[in-house]
Amino acid sequence: MSVVLDAIEAKKRGAALDDATLSAVVDGYTSGQVPDYQMAALLMAIRWQGMTYDETRELTRVMADSGPRYSFPDCVDKHSTGGVGDKVTLTALPLVAACGAKVAKLSGRGLGITGGTIDKLEAIPGLDVHLSKDRFRRQVDKVGMVIGEAGELAPADKAIYALRDTTGTVDSLPLIASSIVSKKAATGAGHLLYDVKVGSGAFMTTVDSARELAALLVRLSESFHITASALVTDMDAPLGRAVGNALEVRESVAYLRGEPTRDDLAEVARDVAVRLLQLTGASNPEQAVTKALESGAGYETFAAFVRAQGGDVDALADLPVSPQVREVAAPSEGYVAAFDALGIARASLALGAGREKKGDPLDYGSGVEVLVQVGDPVAIDQPVALLYGSRQVDAAADLVRRALTVAPEPRPARPHILATL
Amino acid sequence: MSVVLDAIEAKKRGAALDDATLSAVVDGYTSGQVPDYQMAALLMAIRWQGMTYDETRELTRVMADSGPRYSFPDCVDKHSTGGVGDKVTLTALPLVAACGAKVAKLSGRGLGITGGTIDKLEAIPGLDVHLSKDRFRRQVDKVGMVIGEAGELAPADKAIYALRDTTGTVDSLPLIASSIVSKKAATGAGHLLYDVKVGSGAFMTTVDSARELAALLVRLSESFHITASALVTDMDAPLGRAVGNALEVRESVAYLRGEPTRDDLAEVARDVAVRLLQLTGASNPEQAVTKALESGAGYETFAAFVRAQGGDVDALADLPVSPQVREVAAPSEGYVAAFDALGIARASLALGAGREKKGDPLDYGSGVEVLVQVGDPVAIDQPVALLYGSRQVDAAADLVRRALTVAPEPRPARPHILATL
Repeated sequence: MSVVLDAIEAKKRGAALDDATLSAVVDGYTSGQVPDYQMAALLMAIRWQGMTYDETRELTRVMADSGPRYSFPDCVDKHSTGGVGDKVTLTALPLVAACGAKVAKLSGRGLGITGGTIDKLEAIPGLDVHLSKDRFRRQVDKVGMVIGEAGELAPADKAIYALRDTTGTVDSLPLIASSIVSKKAATGAGHLLYDVKVGSGAFMTTVDSARELAALLVRLSESFHITASALVTDMDAPLGRAVGNALEVRESVAYLRGEPTRDDLAEVARDVAVRLLQLTGASNPEQAVTKALESGAGYETFAAFVRAQGGDVDALADLPVSPQVREVAAPSEGYVAAFDALGIARASLALGAGREKKGDPLDYGSGVEVLVQVGDPVAIDQPVALLYGSRQVDAAADLVRRALTVAPEPRPARPHILATL
Repeated sequence: MSVVLDAIEAKKRGAALDDATLSAVVDGYTSGQVPDYQMAALLMAIRWQGMTYDETRELTRVMADSGPRYSFPDCVDKHSTGGVGDKVTLTALPLVAACGAKVAKLSGRGLGITGGTIDKLEAIPGLDVHLSKDRFRRQVDKVGMVIGEAGELAPADKAIYALRDTTGTVDSLPLIASSIVSKKAATGAGHLLYDVKVGSGAFMTTVDSARELAALLVRLSESFHITASALVTDMDAPLGRAVGNALEVRESVAYLRGEPTRDDLAEVARDVAVRLLQLTGASNPEQAVTKALESGAGYETFAAFVRAQGGDVDALADLPVSPQVREVAAPSEGYVAAFDALGIARASLALGAGREKKGDPLDYGSGVEVLVQVGDPVAIDQPVALLYGSRQVDAAADLVRRALTVAPEPRPARPHILATL
């Protein structure tokens, strides 16, 4: 019997895999000795039987150690489990950096309905996310904020995630958590805030499952000597108005410049910033964040970060978006009861703001801008969204219309922040 | 989403796969469009969630239709789920053929602890199991008995079985049953007896699970217009005295020639023969089998079958076995409480009678002969087994010694036939 077959049989029985087995399986898979089909069978067995905390911890470690590991013990990082219109990185992190906490972040690209920070940053002309280790470290020291593409980190996780994505084995709490934390441990920032999204546009669809994932992320992170906390935030509707790369950068810049912003984005961005500062032990984080926002220091830090990575700061104020704009109107009058994040994400994907599969080209200026949120009154034929872009506009309009639920009476909106831990 | 991914998600939810999906997945896998790793994940999900009867029936049909299908509606066939020293094919089928029921059988090779009829037949000098379709059919008509190698039948089953074997997905009742019946449906014999083995040397370890498999095999077969019945027989100890290719042929020949034979072999061989004749609607099958055995007609049919496939009939009476023979003695006095089939099978494998992996060469004259059975009294140092062969003899002796349990008081042996249906 091979190590993998033994592992499959053990997992089928519900036994825990020991450290040596996990190492052998993961290293064997990464090096090509363990074939895809055996790894797929093991992942499906794990998806059914789960993993103990100790197994999850060891799997995380093996994946983190499968590539280079950085160390930025004084830096902060944040991670979102992925949402629609999620611009918390672009808003909270400049505020944190303006308050003196250095930001060292490696991020990814979007796939399917989930956007990626790297794609959003590339909507800024000239901005380069391919940073050498030296340049990354120098920018941390000099600017206090850097975001690079997480290309070479945790290659074992990358390989395993690609396999999970094509074998129906994504939906496993220990596999999700170990995948996330392996990359964070390899990045090496000492303080981490997790933003676990819950709702129709998120991977987690119940607050309980989101809270469970959040708790596991925090516990795993702390075992790697990372101080960590977590928020569970709403993703039944997009965060803020904008969905789409350049549209989201524009909205983030507007927020950082003190322009009027939707309350959900303002609340979550602010809360993430405050909690990150708390993790670093900063005094009066609330006041510090307010000051960074009101003084414009947050925007200045963002601009310095963009400049340091070669981005065109002058373009920030009015980032180009698609000139082709279509209005979607409310079909009836009443109150917005739901504006479904999943439907809007699909519309944005159809318009070209996301990728159906890896490598698909993006239309950075495309996307959806929602003009109403849950609880708002709407009149018949009132514009509720703007579609930017020229691809599949009719399909996108249809998706947005179906995403909107209008009710005769106002319904209470659920809070933006659903749990903290 | 691909068809396979949809199928994986459906199976994870516990839904049944429809006919079109099963066809697309199996045909896609056989043609190489569905990759190993997706099929492995689906098989593991099926292993967990099971399949409805309708799914199992359709999977069986798709696999049966993946290669050529023969049709021998008047012929009989039998299938054993695999045991140790299982020589029922070599004993029951010549008796059946001697009674006028034609035998058309395609069989396989052994792997691991399970022997294969094709290997046993190849222990007969000159015997050829690679028969063209024409030669196969001519021999059915002329001799009334043929056994060929099941090379080209149900290639989808062959590919899926190989994947299951390396991904921990063998242990699934619907997958086991569909695999067996797909090959039987493709062979096309109209009457089938299943011999489901249960015990330490068999895949099924409880009578209940064996009975469940037997019932499914019968039901699936009948849906392909095959009249079928099943026995559940004991495999806690080897069937008869001999384990190993030439040794088993010798014991079978001795039985057919009316020489003294162990009661378990005689009972099972006779019962299988009678039940097969019953399936064909023959009158007085009990008497017919007795007559075929006592008159020597069974042996004559076996000899005619061997001759027709090029085998040396003169060698049958004293088939060569290994001249290197080691005795294993009882370590204490008392009564045989168990002579574990799995341990003896491993010893036989070590001696060269079986294959660790596909393609390993066999020593046809090697194996184990057990001299005692459950319930027999033994004296200290009394020989309990003979080991034939020159490979790993010490290891084999140790395995046989450990397979033997001697108790101070006689224990009742369990019946050889545990259930019929």
